[in-house]
Amino acid sequence: MIEGMELIPGGSVTTPRGFLAGAVRARIRFMRLDLGLLHSEAPCAAAGVYTQCNVKAAPVLITQKHLTNGRAQAVIANSGCANAATGQHGLDDAIEMAQLASAKLGIDPHEVVVASTGVIGTFMPMERIRRGVAQMELSAEGGLDFAQAIMTTDTRPKHVAVRFGGHMVGGVAKGAGMIHPNMATMLSFMTTDAPVAPGFLAGALKEAVGSSFNMIDVDSDTSTNDMVVVLANGLAGGAIIDGRQPAADAFSAALTQVCTHLAKAIVADAEGGTKLIEARVDGARSLEDARRAAREVVRSLAVKTAVYGHDPNWGRILAAVGNSGADMREGNTALYLLSPEDDELCLFRKGAPQPYRKSQAKACLAQREVRIRIDLGLAEASATAWGSDITEGYVRLNSRYTT
Amino acid sequence: MIEGMELIPGGSVTTPRGFLAGAVRARIRFMRLDLGLLHSEAPCAAAGVYTQCNVKAAPVLITQKHLTNGRAQAVIANSGCANAATGQHGLDDAIEMAQLASAKLGIDPHEVVVASTGVIGTFMPMERIRRGVAQMELSAEGGLDFAQAIMTTDTRPKHVAVRFGGHMVGGVAKGAGMIHPNMATMLSFMTTDAPVAPGFLAGALKEAVGSSFNMIDVDSDTSTNDMVVVLANGLAGGAIIDGRQPAADAFSAALTQVCTHLAKAIVADAEGGTKLIEARVDGARSLEDARRAAREVVRSLAVKTAVYGHDPNWGRILAAVGNSGADMREGNTALYLLSPEDDELCLFRKGAPQPYRKSQAKACLAQREVRIRIDLGLAEASATAWGSDITEGYVRLNSRYTT
Repeated sequence: MIEGMELIPGGSVTTPRGFLAGAVRARIRFMRLDLGLLHSEAPCAAAGVYTQCNVKAAPVLITQKHLTNGRAQAVIANSGCANAATGQHGLDDAIEMAQLASAKLGIDPHEVVVASTGVIGTFMPMERIRRGVAQMELSAEGGLDFAQAIMTTDTRPKHVAVRFGGHMVGGVAKGAGMIHPNMATMLSFMTTDAPVAPGFLAGALKEAVGSSFNMIDVDSDTSTNDMVVVLANGLAGGAIIDGRQPAADAFSAALTQVCTHLAKAIVADAEGGTKLIEARVDGARSLEDARRAAREVVRSLAVKTAVYGHDPNWGRILAAVGNSGADMREGNTALYLLSPEDDELCLFRKGAPQPYRKSQAKACLAQREVRIRIDLGLAEASATAWGSDITEGYVRLNSRYTT
Repeated sequence: MIEGMELIPGGSVTTPRGFLAGAVRARIRFMRLDLGLLHSEAPCAAAGVYTQCNVKAAPVLITQKHLTNGRAQAVIANSGCANAATGQHGLDDAIEMAQLASAKLGIDPHEVVVASTGVIGTFMPMERIRRGVAQMELSAEGGLDFAQAIMTTDTRPKHVAVRFGGHMVGGVAKGAGMIHPNMATMLSFMTTDAPVAPGFLAGALKEAVGSSFNMIDVDSDTSTNDMVVVLANGLAGGAIIDGRQPAADAFSAALTQVCTHLAKAIVADAEGGTKLIEARVDGARSLEDARRAAREVVRSLAVKTAVYGHDPNWGRILAAVGNSGADMREGNTALYLLSPEDDELCLFRKGAPQPYRKSQAKACLAQREVRIRIDLGLAEASATAWGSDITEGYVRLNSRYTT
């Protein structure tokens, strides 16, 4: 945690001032919260980042359009149906979802963010959505219900809030990882009561996502519905944060903190996963190289399965770095495992395997969070990535399907 | 099979004229063939393609050096030790392996290709290699022994030969997929008695590998030791094939045929795999786009696990195409599964899910070879990729390790 920043226990999107949320069992899924609504009492600056997949779900396309002016005031989100690969019919449904929310809240439909997660290729059960929106009740304590409504194979809701100066940033997320019976989605919504200019907000979000949500890997698949959105309503007051004041750095740090917390929570709750793998790369020629190498280590199935099996298989880590495309030289590269006591166990250095005690390596790998450090020994850039391990449970969860 | 080309039952690298091979139990591994030698009675034009991993094993570096002049006359290959991440010591060992082979065969050490596969980060047991080379006996029937000597987690040797006109092309390969206790390697060696000019041979190999070994996916990891080498000794006689005669096309087709056969054999024998997934992409804007899209479909864990579970989960296929980077439009894209009778079952077309009978989809997915066709509907380029499915057995094999 950065100095002056404070974690708020149980915090979520309704922790910052002026945000209300709620969720209902709309019967899109069986007997659980599956439709959520988030509303700000005041208009917000808003920004989003979206899936890079060429197949984009209808709600992604509608949200991108609605956020082009950098303004929004509400989010409607559901689980159980992705509304992806649904053509014009799907677009019409996503537009109606925005209209339902706007009518209920008395705002313009273009001020509504729409998000969906669930099965690809089926249409939204719109009658249930209409009834669900009608039943919805919003409150300042509704953030946790909202977090639950977007869960799919997640085993727990993911939410956090931090305070910095006189402002707060809160967030919720749902997990990545493919799900029964279709691919899942990474969704995250963040709120803040800081007064942030839209242009600065978009840049700050992009940067925060670059070092958090873009640095995690569960199964290397990007969904059709991925979306991260932030709303800033300014109700805490003060001067507009537009990048030219110290408050801008504090805000960016808080946003990055919230994104990183949620990103790690997603990986820690990965389908069938038993461990969180953290790969830190130092000594890279550029930030992009450091990120590439770190991401490839946590993406490699060889590394994931070795970590799952508590196997100090550093050859796989070295090969992953070699496959990443990052500039590296075998003779400059050093590999370390971090022990429960934060000691570094060197496995490879100066082009040669290093002698180590197997029991020490096992102790490093037996941790719930397995930490790997790679020093490329070339320059000064660093990055960290997080991944889950791959288990028989993952395969089971993703292959069993009865039609 | 292309017209005029004939498969030779039981064929291998010793099927073309003038190639001898043998293998011994050198005790690098426990009680099995683990060291092989391949020799041509006449000098050969030779070409190789190598791992793109930035961490290259010592034998890869030595072989690259030896093949710069486009000439070779022998291959020495072992399993059980990759001689990777072994620094100068490893280079010295690889050089000595070439010297041992050259002394035995009475050729120049620079005419020897060196290949290794097995554990990363351990040194070659050179005393065993020396004894093994001394014991080695070569024969014109030794191709299958040689194929066995390079096996690691492969459950069967991989070998093939084809005849075209008056010439033959033979080949052996060992499987991709990570292995206990380290990452495995894709090795393939091919031989021909056709008289081929070195420059043309290098180009033909690159092209053949581009549509075969480069189009398969087991686990998206590239090893430190991957190598494909072809030797052409010209003993069948005739005019030198240098690209300017019809024989050049026939030779390229035969080489591609052998590479494709071996590449598919690798995927069909993937660790823990139960199925071969074939993804054909038509209608792409470019060959590169078609290859990208086909490769991403067989790479996607979502697709691999769905196929394993007989799940007609076309949303995962569509998302994989969308993630590939290939130019595509949802409204132009069509997805098909191929039935045992070669009928096409359409799942998605013109931006909309298509109604289909679940039992038909199940029949398509119950096959040992599951065939998927994607028509991007943009232009004329096509490509095919092959992948294995991912199973609990794969995870078990790659995570269990006792030190």
